[in-house]
Amino acid sequence: MDEKMLTIDLNSQKMIAKAREEGVETMYDRKEGFKAQCGFGLQGVCCRICGMGPCRISPKTPRGLCGADEHTIVGRNFARMVAGGTAAHSDHARDIAHTLALADPNGNYKIRDEAKLITLAKEWDVETEGRDIYDVAHEVAEIALMEFGKPFGTLRFIKNAPEPRQKIWKEYAIEPRAIDREIATIMHSTHIGCTGDIDSLIHMSLRTSMADGWGGSMIGTRLSDILFGTPVPRRTEANLAVLEENKVNIILHGHEPALSEMIVLASEEPDLVALAKEVGADGINLAGMCCTGNEITMRHGVKIAGDFHQQELAIITGAVEAVIVDVQCIFPALARVADCYHTKFVTTSPKAKITGSTYIEFREEQALDDAKAIVKEAILNFKNRDKSKVLIPELKSGATVGYSVEAVVNQLDRVVNSHIDPAGTVKPLTDCLKSGVLRGAAGVVGCNNAKGVSNEAHVTIMKELIKNDIIVVTTGCGASAAAKFGLMESDAAEKYAGKGLATVCKLVGIPPVLHMGSCVDISRILDLVGAAANYLDMDMCDLPVVGIAPEWMSEKAVAIGCYVVASGIDTYLGIMPPIAGSSRAVDILTSELKDKVGATFTVNTNPKELAATIIEDIEKKRVHFEALVEEKMAEKAEA
Amino acid sequence: MDEKMLTIDLNSQKMIAKAREEGVETMYDRKEGFKAQCGFGLQGVCCRICGMGPCRISPKTPRGLCGADEHTIVGRNFARMVAGGTAAHSDHARDIAHTLALADPNGNYKIRDEAKLITLAKEWDVETEGRDIYDVAHEVAEIALMEFGKPFGTLRFIKNAPEPRQKIWKEYAIEPRAIDREIATIMHSTHIGCTGDIDSLIHMSLRTSMADGWGGSMIGTRLSDILFGTPVPRRTEANLAVLEENKVNIILHGHEPALSEMIVLASEEPDLVALAKEVGADGINLAGMCCTGNEITMRHGVKIAGDFHQQELAIITGAVEAVIVDVQCIFPALARVADCYHTKFVTTSPKAKITGSTYIEFREEQALDDAKAIVKEAILNFKNRDKSKVLIPELKSGATVGYSVEAVVNQLDRVVNSHIDPAGTVKPLTDCLKSGVLRGAAGVVGCNNAKGVSNEAHVTIMKELIKNDIIVVTTGCGASAAAKFGLMESDAAEKYAGKGLATVCKLVGIPPVLHMGSCVDISRILDLVGAAANYLDMDMCDLPVVGIAPEWMSEKAVAIGCYVVASGIDTYLGIMPPIAGSSRAVDILTSELKDKVGATFTVNTNPKELAATIIEDIEKKRVHFEALVEEKMAEKAEA
Repeated sequence: MDEKMLTIDLNSQKMIAKAREEGVETMYDRKEGFKAQCGFGLQGVCCRICGMGPCRISPKTPRGLCGADEHTIVGRNFARMVAGGTAAHSDHARDIAHTLALADPNGNYKIRDEAKLITLAKEWDVETEGRDIYDVAHEVAEIALMEFGKPFGTLRFIKNAPEPRQKIWKEYAIEPRAIDREIATIMHSTHIGCTGDIDSLIHMSLRTSMADGWGGSMIGTRLSDILFGTPVPRRTEANLAVLEENKVNIILHGHEPALSEMIVLASEEPDLVALAKEVGADGINLAGMCCTGNEITMRHGVKIAGDFHQQELAIITGAVEAVIVDVQCIFPALARVADCYHTKFVTTSPKAKITGSTYIEFREEQALDDAKAIVKEAILNFKNRDKSKVLIPELKSGATVGYSVEAVVNQLDRVVNSHIDPAGTVKPLTDCLKSGVLRGAAGVVGCNNAKGVSNEAHVTIMKELIKNDIIVVTTGCGASAAAKFGLMESDAAEKYAGKGLATVCKLVGIPPVLHMGSCVDISRILDLVGAAANYLDMDMCDLPVVGIAPEWMSEKAVAIGCYVVASGIDTYLGIMPPIAGSSRAVDILTSELKDKVGATFTVNTNPKELAATIIEDIEKKRVHFEALVEEKMAEKAEA
Repeated sequence: MDEKMLTIDLNSQKMIAKAREEGVETMYDRKEGFKAQCGFGLQGVCCRICGMGPCRISPKTPRGLCGADEHTIVGRNFARMVAGGTAAHSDHARDIAHTLALADPNGNYKIRDEAKLITLAKEWDVETEGRDIYDVAHEVAEIALMEFGKPFGTLRFIKNAPEPRQKIWKEYAIEPRAIDREIATIMHSTHIGCTGDIDSLIHMSLRTSMADGWGGSMIGTRLSDILFGTPVPRRTEANLAVLEENKVNIILHGHEPALSEMIVLASEEPDLVALAKEVGADGINLAGMCCTGNEITMRHGVKIAGDFHQQELAIITGAVEAVIVDVQCIFPALARVADCYHTKFVTTSPKAKITGSTYIEFREEQALDDAKAIVKEAILNFKNRDKSKVLIPELKSGATVGYSVEAVVNQLDRVVNSHIDPAGTVKPLTDCLKSGVLRGAAGVVGCNNAKGVSNEAHVTIMKELIKNDIIVVTTGCGASAAAKFGLMESDAAEKYAGKGLATVCKLVGIPPVLHMGSCVDISRILDLVGAAANYLDMDMCDLPVVGIAPEWMSEKAVAIGCYVVASGIDTYLGIMPPIAGSSRAVDILTSELKDKVGATFTVNTNPKELAATIIEDIEKKRVHFEALVEEKMAEKAEA
């Protein structure tokens, strides 16, 4: 297939062509082989849960050997995807909590946001007065760790949601217990001979996903901010052209900031910078990829080399000394691609070893030393670069990133009339939503998916939304796409946004698409929507706010979709999940959940059509929202 | 297919024929539709872990879209089976621990084995002196619950293993941390873009399985004994003929004893017995199925109606008023089969709701009341029985069951020369192994699998082994098979066992096949082998002892196989797991693990051949064992 049909990213197209010339296999080649994917798998009706199977549902075999029908099979497979996604985010958070437990004023990991720590400590009834901040940190870390395994009670963060939302969770019985327990229970309930009821399987899926969004992910974000600093707006650049011909290029890829933060520190160590010069380079150039890229660009402005679908392509530039990874979304293919160049492919986590990589274990206890050793490997590899193979494509885009909730509120303060209103609230945002200057807000998140054209759905939908005065917040590979395509640039509002949004952006000093972080940082979006709902004395489902995953692919995205819907936010997918084989699953997820949690899923693989539906739905939500605003105003006037 | 080709159980054959006459679909009919199962699934090379797939490995597509090869895909699927199995056993144990936390001298759940509680309390450093036994119980329960979620450290029970075994676990780094954490970590590490290394995936699988065998399962067994009594030998009967024409027949099916114990109590309540008579029955007849059957036959002698493959067939007798289930191994098909008769299919667990069943939630807090309500439903259903549809097949077999480790030791005491040796040890057993009167011991466990002829492999292998003086201990549906086929009868040794084993059976007063309980009770087998190894000052892998799962089908069995191998016990499977697509997976599991943990897997789908291999291997193990015995004796003589 022509490169132009595979991705809308011109750099990527160039790299795919280079790879083909050089006989290097990429995902785009493998895609040819998977043109016709198994229909049973696509529909979700293949069961491999016990050793009597596999059983596949067809008109001739409407039930598996145990009698499981298409609904049970689809439901179990779906629930296990949620369990996988919840496990990924939460196990990431667990590591951050363990890192916080190791925090030490004289160690590698310090407390960088004391105020945020104190706030959390108070939320969790941890004594803060007159105590050493590190003692507080360690106690908070232990409480956080217990959220994964406590035998009794539900998760702490659900109390942060608006009260009407908490009530719905209680009534629908989806308040999550300990995070790992929810995962274990899903794995149990989907075992052969357990749950054979699609309603129950989706119900459990939602509860487990809540343990992600309002559990693991939220812990991950909060503790990362405490340890590494809460992001503030800063400038960066995005796309493969951030690689530099004369420097040692190191790509950081994966998810957990514990490693990447140390690599950032190590890359600034004078002796390593000197070593880089010794080997003939101008210095060390770090660039991020996937969510590790998002973490370090949010906190340090480290440039973004690319997204999930560009991980092989970065190596194919021939200019990368090392790709350093930890966990999640790392192509095992990198080992083979790296072999075709001089690139060192360094794995670091015992949770994600990959055959053919160089494994250098990263241990939080001796973090900086390990990080230095890893960076040194990269530097020493510079001499092996084959200049004849180097081709760094020329396109990149500037971007402003770093929009934590705190940063957003801080920006909003710029338009607060300090004679009338207090600073430090989301009032300017809710005012814009109320007045209709902003028609609504959308979280556009998620991955890239080989089922579509890379980046196309992300960029198409974001552009359509902002054109229609819907402000976009984004994380993960959605954020990378926005950054690469100039949607986080200072002129983006002027170029792409509708008049209302453009005005807001100008006044508040923000781009029309806000980078809120990595995929665990969707918890920031929950916080922001929760804060807006609270401010308006409404439930989250009352706001003209939606979630969108145009190119999702990972199980994490499935968990995210579920907890976003469970949080009352309608969610739109550009890729069909493997549920079509069960009419009941489709009904529940796309319709019946509305009555239960106030939101549902909508799927459309055509980005233009999906965008049109979203805009239409937001306008419909506005009718309800505006009526509610008036109602509340009337109530207030009466009181 | 002719019934005789489907199962060797004559009762089952009769019921299959009856079902066919009456137009009722059973698993045996569905089996026809699945004659040709998906080769990709069977080989384990189909990946559905992310939303870009499914990707299937073939010569034309040797790698998935992300680059995962057959080894990575097989390994991830395998690891997730282990996670599913570990979750099932452990979530079961969690419920028992919660039940212990509710124990109350005036409540439904009491402490029945104080001595066992005190022993465990001491192992866990819980103060016992001068304390109320229920206070001790509650503290033990909380510690047990923390084993699922504690943020630090490894599981407590691994310290019960022989020291050389513990050393191997430490060196090979498979000491499990908190149970749920291991499950979550597997789910994380098998997420897209994490572990892409088959060695690592199998290593993690073993560690997680250890959290089953030496964690969840062992907790399940111990706490069940404390709450419901440690089994002692007692008489029972097995097979469908235990159903009684003139009584209200209630089948208890599933796994957790918390429910079934209460149903046993409820079925003895005078007012319910009276009600049964009121509706025209002679009384209430409880019968067990699958592991619930094993639990209540071990503790109460409740008759065994049948095994996993007979669950539909029991209803087809037309004589069952209710099938009451909790979790695991319950065919969703029971809803349709029950609809064809008057049978009430009652589900009771929020973890295992099934469409088409009558759901009556069982809550430990009001256990007996709930149990009575459930039994009442069954009694009131007696009037709906259609006598013209009743056909109870006539075959059943007597059996002696109840061989907990304590009961085994107690039996062994019968042959202790009390002038020379102390009572209460496994010495008589180890003496028999040393002398060669017993050539070895085998744990024959696991399910029934539609891939084979029901019960054939179990019965063939057990008969071959005992004929060759290898004593058999069994649990789960293996135990049901042995009971049904007379291998636990008092004349079984005489009829089927070799001379050595027959002599031992006669002297000790045991059958040649010992019923040790349900599938979580494989922990009893670990305890017994551990005790024997300890007594001989050896590692578990030194003994002429093997594990066999002739007809395994569930993920629990995969977890069991892994922890048995990790415990140093060679394991033989009669069904091929979905790993054949990866030569590396096959190599590691069937060969390389020998060097790591002292044991491996062997697979052969021909039961006769598998039995021959096992007997041969045990003789080979004896060479090593006998040399070691001599070595130890020489050491002792020197000292």
